[in-house]
Amino acid sequence: MNTRTEKDLLGEKQIPADAPWGIHTARALENFPIPGRPVPPALIAALAQVKKACALANKELGLLSPEKAAAVIYACEEIQASNGNYPLSALQGGAGTSTNMMLNELIANKAGSTVHPIEDVNLHQSTNDVYPTAVKVAAIQGLRGLAEKVEALQGAFQRLENKFAHIPTIGKTELVEAVPLTLGAEFGAFAEAFARDRWRTFKCEERLRVINLGGTAVGTGLTAPRSYIFLVTDKLREVTGLGLSRGENLVDQTANADAFVEVSGILKACAANLLKICGDLRLLHMNKRIKLPAVQAGSSIMPGKVNPVILESVMQIGIKVQANDFIVTECASRGSLQINEFMPLLAAALLESMELLGAACHMLSTHAEGIVADEAECERQFNASVEIVTAFLPAIGYDRSTELVKQFDGATDFRTYLENQLGTELVEKTLSPQNLMALGHRT
Amino acid sequence: MNTRTEKDLLGEKQIPADAPWGIHTARALENFPIPGRPVPPALIAALAQVKKACALANKELGLLSPEKAAAVIYACEEIQASNGNYPLSALQGGAGTSTNMMLNELIANKAGSTVHPIEDVNLHQSTNDVYPTAVKVAAIQGLRGLAEKVEALQGAFQRLENKFAHIPTIGKTELVEAVPLTLGAEFGAFAEAFARDRWRTFKCEERLRVINLGGTAVGTGLTAPRSYIFLVTDKLREVTGLGLSRGENLVDQTANADAFVEVSGILKACAANLLKICGDLRLLHMNKRIKLPAVQAGSSIMPGKVNPVILESVMQIGIKVQANDFIVTECASRGSLQINEFMPLLAAALLESMELLGAACHMLSTHAEGIVADEAECERQFNASVEIVTAFLPAIGYDRSTELVKQFDGATDFRTYLENQLGTELVEKTLSPQNLMALGHRT
Amino acid sequence: MNTRTEKDLLGEKQIPADAPWGIHTARALENFPIPGRPVPPALIAALAQVKKACALANKELGLLSPEKAAAVIYACEEIQASNGNYPLSALQGGAGTSTNMMLNELIANKAGSTVHPIEDVNLHQSTNDVYPTAVKVAAIQGLRGLAEKVEALQGAFQRLENKFAHIPTIGKTELVEAVPLTLGAEFGAFAEAFARDRWRTFKCEERLRVINLGGTAVGTGLTAPRSYIFLVTDKLREVTGLGLSRGENLVDQTANADAFVEVSGILKACAANLLKICGDLRLLHMNKRIKLPAVQAGSSIMPGKVNPVILESVMQIGIKVQANDFIVTECASRGSLQINEFMPLLAAALLESMELLGAACHMLSTHAEGIVADEAECERQFNASVEIVTAFLPAIGYDRSTELVKQFDGATDFRTYLENQLGTELVEKTLSPQNLMALGHRT
Amino acid sequence: MNTRTEKDLLGEKQIPADAPWGIHTARALENFPIPGRPVPPALIAALAQVKKACALANKELGLLSPEKAAAVIYACEEIQASNGNYPLSALQGGAGTSTNMMLNELIANKAGSTVHPIEDVNLHQSTNDVYPTAVKVAAIQGLRGLAEKVEALQGAFQRLENKFAHIPTIGKTELVEAVPLTLGAEFGAFAEAFARDRWRTFKCEERLRVINLGGTAVGTGLTAPRSYIFLVTDKLREVTGLGLSRGENLVDQTANADAFVEVSGILKACAANLLKICGDLRLLHMNKRIKLPAVQAGSSIMPGKVNPVILESVMQIGIKVQANDFIVTECASRGSLQINEFMPLLAAALLESMELLGAACHMLSTHAEGIVADEAECERQFNASVEIVTAFLPAIGYDRSTELVKQFDGATDFRTYLENQLGTELVEKTLSPQNLMALGHRT
Repeated sequence: MNTRTEKDLLGEKQIPADAPWGIHTARALENFPIPGRPVPPALIAALAQVKKACALANKELGLLSPEKAAAVIYACEEIQASNGNYPLSALQGGAGTSTNMMLNELIANKAGSTVHPIEDVNLHQSTNDVYPTAVKVAAIQGLRGLAEKVEALQGAFQRLENKFAHIPTIGKTELVEAVPLTLGAEFGAFAEAFARDRWRTFKCEERLRVINLGGTAVGTGLTAPRSYIFLVTDKLREVTGLGLSRGENLVDQTANADAFVEVSGILKACAANLLKICGDLRLLHMNKRIKLPAVQAGSSIMPGKVNPVILESVMQIGIKVQANDFIVTECASRGSLQINEFMPLLAAALLESMELLGAACHMLSTHAEGIVADEAECERQFNASVEIVTAFLPAIGYDRSTELVKQFDGATDFRTYLENQLGTELVEKTLSPQNLMALGHRT
Repeated sequence: MNTRTEKDLLGEKQIPADAPWGIHTARALENFPIPGRPVPPALIAALAQVKKACALANKELGLLSPEKAAAVIYACEEIQASNGNYPLSALQGGAGTSTNMMLNELIANKAGSTVHPIEDVNLHQSTNDVYPTAVKVAAIQGLRGLAEKVEALQGAFQRLENKFAHIPTIGKTELVEAVPLTLGAEFGAFAEAFARDRWRTFKCEERLRVINLGGTAVGTGLTAPRSYIFLVTDKLREVTGLGLSRGENLVDQTANADAFVEVSGILKACAANLLKICGDLRLLHMNKRIKLPAVQAGSSIMPGKVNPVILESVMQIGIKVQANDFIVTECASRGSLQINEFMPLLAAALLESMELLGAACHMLSTHAEGIVADEAECERQFNASVEIVTAFLPAIGYDRSTELVKQFDGATDFRTYLENQLGTELVEKTLSPQNLMALGHRT
Repeated sequence: MNTRTEKDLLGEKQIPADAPWGIHTARALENFPIPGRPVPPALIAALAQVKKACALANKELGLLSPEKAAAVIYACEEIQASNGNYPLSALQGGAGTSTNMMLNELIANKAGSTVHPIEDVNLHQSTNDVYPTAVKVAAIQGLRGLAEKVEALQGAFQRLENKFAHIPTIGKTELVEAVPLTLGAEFGAFAEAFARDRWRTFKCEERLRVINLGGTAVGTGLTAPRSYIFLVTDKLREVTGLGLSRGENLVDQTANADAFVEVSGILKACAANLLKICGDLRLLHMNKRIKLPAVQAGSSIMPGKVNPVILESVMQIGIKVQANDFIVTECASRGSLQINEFMPLLAAALLESMELLGAACHMLSTHAEGIVADEAECERQFNASVEIVTAFLPAIGYDRSTELVKQFDGATDFRTYLENQLGTELVEKTLSPQNLMALGHRT
Repeated sequence: MNTRTEKDLLGEKQIPADAPWGIHTARALENFPIPGRPVPPALIAALAQVKKACALANKELGLLSPEKAAAVIYACEEIQASNGNYPLSALQGGAGTSTNMMLNELIANKAGSTVHPIEDVNLHQSTNDVYPTAVKVAAIQGLRGLAEKVEALQGAFQRLENKFAHIPTIGKTELVEAVPLTLGAEFGAFAEAFARDRWRTFKCEERLRVINLGGTAVGTGLTAPRSYIFLVTDKLREVTGLGLSRGENLVDQTANADAFVEVSGILKACAANLLKICGDLRLLHMNKRIKLPAVQAGSSIMPGKVNPVILESVMQIGIKVQANDFIVTECASRGSLQINEFMPLLAAALLESMELLGAACHMLSTHAEGIVADEAECERQFNASVEIVTAFLPAIGYDRSTELVKQFDGATDFRTYLENQLGTELVEKTLSPQNLMALGHRT
């Protein structure tokens, strides 16, 4: 293998001649031989944006030559656009130093021989300010992608709400038949939950807008000029188009990761909704009130066996997001003193949750388009259930209702029996979807 | 034992003659023989408030006689005020039915012989609307208690921030000495984190204000008059003084518990802060930068051994709150169809978290009052550390700094050495707290 | 309030004249004002046994006078037998020091004026050896109580296995009808899972038998005579009747809490089984294959509504045990250097899990006695299901089977149709419980 | 793109002409568009071994022609050996059906045109028996890889135990200086914990040996000949060299996943040890008792800053394993009736934990080789600490010791002071490593 020699504080090292990175990255690759979990590409892209903003600020203040700045900026844009995968492990130690150094080296190598990874690319920066800032940028971008998918999901269920609005059904509480409502109302409740999830993504974004860029090592801005510190967040706002602002207390912003815990905790509500609602859809499918679309063969001999595989996959994502929330909390709570040393794992878990939730919402909204009601079976179950008598309580009272249930002999279904006892008109009116879903009754 | 006979749908049962409750509660006590975890008193008090609001609404609309209403309202007020403990298990099944029935029976028994637990006390109600509503009322009340304690905690650390503002210290990143800042700045970062926690308690309250009271069994308001449904939330607002509002979609509000997941997830950020900050205080104590107040003998033979027992206790509370968040999420995500059957455990966990966080904040703010800096030791460590050279980078540059570190022979402490090399004036000015905490340097 | 004055290294303090404890406990009560979670009584009883063993060893070696020893031993026995509740919080900091000191003081006070809580009761002991030892003793005792209840649970389900062995049913995979088996086989699978849980309780005990008694502060036995160290575990074996042994490396045993993580992790498998199996029972009840016993009124108007409240309660316990396992792991993994400072919370969580699992097993086995099969409905569902054709595959092949399903017109149930097509004899034989449960078919 | 047409129960589909798989896999790739988490290669290799065993059994019994069997076996061996990555998502729904079908198709395609993926490759199999069996095979193989790495880790720390045996140090409890022991003893405690972890890997293997191969869909062996069922486990034993055995109750083994919960829970103890011990090593490094090897530049300006990056990485792995244990428990406890539909996520989490723990053990044992004690600093701290007086308690008693501490004026370090007061000989002897580590003292 062709190699080149690079040197750092620990000494010299041979690295592959064509490696797009340098010695710091090469050491990190050896230090963290953890297969299969690379740094999230979205984080690398976000860090490239941060580095670009720093170069812009340095250039504007005359702290970096126009030539070098142009080269650095170009390299940052290329790296961001390529959305590439790099073998560096997401579980690296060092609070993100290796990712930061890799970006410095990638950018310098792309920018050309006069650009130094530390003195130029990393100018007035520390891992401790650029890395958490990049995590927030990537997270906000992840949230925006997620928001679109939650919106589509909400829309899909609102369409089903309307489509099923005319179908009466018996609600279940504690898995046992309870009182009537419409199938549409059940799907409307799902849609409302997703509406809250959508709204939550906006709330999460608010929590992530305050950044510590310019704070360098511990939030005091040590070694950075004040003019740079005051400018660089503006530049990042321009580069990203996001409504970022510099924290008032950068020591705090550098030391504490509680904002991520809050965001992850809020996202977990979306995971809980997915688990709950997919669980419900499985039950409705099991009880033949709805039919899920067949997306793959369920069994080699029974053509009709439709397994709820999409729902199961979405539920697994819900579980994984819950696990990631645990990780985020652990990482934040175990941090020490001036920085959070477990930010790499925290970032990987948080960004993965957003990506997975997005995939889950997409899968579920696509699947929802194919859900149909089994109206005949809904009607059969509804008419057979003695629980429909509860809809008549306002009209005929408890005693009469109880009496009717007691004397029901099962010769017909319960609805026919009621029609015989109470007249068709009253039964029609009382069990109409409109009446079932009217909020309370007229006194 | 003297007994009386009561009857329900399952048949007759002897219950102690002096039991303040009735047959439903008696069955529940036998059904759930789980020692040591009673229904939270705060939840019982909140449910009494809900029942009072229902009685007020029923009375105003002429649906409950003034005499019965007065008796019910009086009983509710008594139960709320007594803040009593009842043996019914918090881990009951049945979605809160047993707690609701216990309240119905307690109130009816207190209200006198003409009041029926179900027909009067529970009039136009279902466990499925009054119980989740009571959980929200109790949670908001819990949050307000917590907010006060977080505020006190923030204040305590702000005072320490000011008190320690003049003490330079060497920051640590990844537990290794890094660059200088002040001890006050470290405590300021703690105070900022608690400020966010305080703000979070308000945000949590917003999530809990939408209730499903009036929705009865599944959110359709079945068996309740519309006039009652439109009135009862107003009454609960009056009774509690809280800014509650009726949900627009009561089927959704009855079926979904995601609001609790969101709230618990946000509270978890406070737990993470407590863990992180108590961990830091332990390290600062270990490294002799601060002295924790001695609150109990640390060792029978070493008078000076001050163990960080309060911090350890607070950290344990942080862990327990994390565990409760897991419970809340599990309960919400495992709910099915029209209601959440695991609400009793969810409620117990959520309310316990608030209570525990309150206790932790109180313990820590009290403890913080007694924290003192070991200024001499801070000064010794600061002056001894070669890391202080980093403060001189803007003035003398990297090369000179590196050179100075290389040539340091350890004959004096590093600060004295720097004074000898660079002059007292520059050293004084550069290492002053003001200069260390200025954000960046003038270009 | 009448008070008495006591003194410790921090100074004098007034404590209630009739308090059964002394100044250290009084301080701890003030230091940890955390309502509602007292030290587990089982742990206090176990610590009394440990203290008794220490007194026996000290006495035998002439290190404690026979009179004092007798008084101490008597006091220990009284405390153990009383199984009392004390207000000291289970979430205390200090690695158990406060519980240890409370025991020392309780014993000394009971033993009489000549016995000193530290010099006599705590002789040759440290919190760091007696407390973890007591946790292990309490845990083993808890496991034995649990084992009995798991055994009863296994028995209850084995009885149902036999009772339902003759009832064919259609198995469900992914909640969709799959292939036939018997209802008895389903319950047999539940019984097998509980059989493993029972076996696990024995495995857990093995992990807990190695103790660090005699190791004092950090496992070196500092200040304890070697003869005492070699004797005291024998004494504890006698006192408790448990197969305890002294660890070979007491520094390790004092510092590391991984044995508790392992035990808690194993117990979690029991929690997972309870969750899984109660979930299944709820589904079988929902699908009317079994009828759960009615233990309380499910609804005020529908006599027939039987809610699975016991199952829900057991599931909540399963969730709580999972949460406790999280706590145990956190406490163990956050411990530092020579001891585990979070042992109090660890112990409370572990012992609670055992107690809760015991309660759950008891509730579920009692409930199981009342579970009946709805044979008619099972038969109806079985006969109606086209999936029963899969039982005929060995006899008639895939092509014929598929053809039969395709041509089924629904005029009769599917079984009758098969009888018409294939003859009653073949259908009878093929769908007999014996044939369904024979492992594979003869070639 | 060149395509070919394939057909299944849902209809025809175009798939890439050169795809190594078929229509079922193609549908699964579309159904589960979840980027970045492919099915673990170890699981694919294990499933190839299972398929080979099935082919061997079918061949021996004359149920599969020798030609087809040979082709299938050859394809299985190739797939196993290639250890390839396939794009199919690990978070697929369907209980592993897609993975099973992909293997059927991969094998059939490799085996040649006469071999049918279902009729030949999947002969007498169901996803529900081959997939859980493959998970167990992969898990046992993963455990064996892990065991080696834990053994190396134990060895590394045992070497440090010996290397540091002569260095006295002051132990810390609750992060505060306590009593003396040796640095070697601290490392010996670490080694013991890892010894238990190694032993645990063997215990875990025992839990995984019982398989349900031959049980087909629900454990009744439906559609499989009895002779095959009795033979196939023997074949898998031969193929894998692992001590597998057929479960006595295959319905149970097919339905329940508690064995995985148990195994994951036990592995979590290893994660807890890694977290605890790396935390300790960080503290010892921070307190300058040991020096960690520098593996990358800690700071661009301070050559001496050695950050504990390897330890942080290992701690992150510990957190991730804890999260995976949560996932395994969730998946097992949410399974329903005859199979566990969440097995794909369960398997991915469990196998990832093993792989990650292996990587962590490897990283830490390599790192440990470079750990050195800072003997001079240990000596300085030891001699300076008044806590060393505790070692003299057996010789001079409490009163004298307390007196000595009180009168110490700090003119010299404490050890020199003690030598002046008690004579060099007694001090030498008392503070010798041998005496410090003798278990207790002679009476």
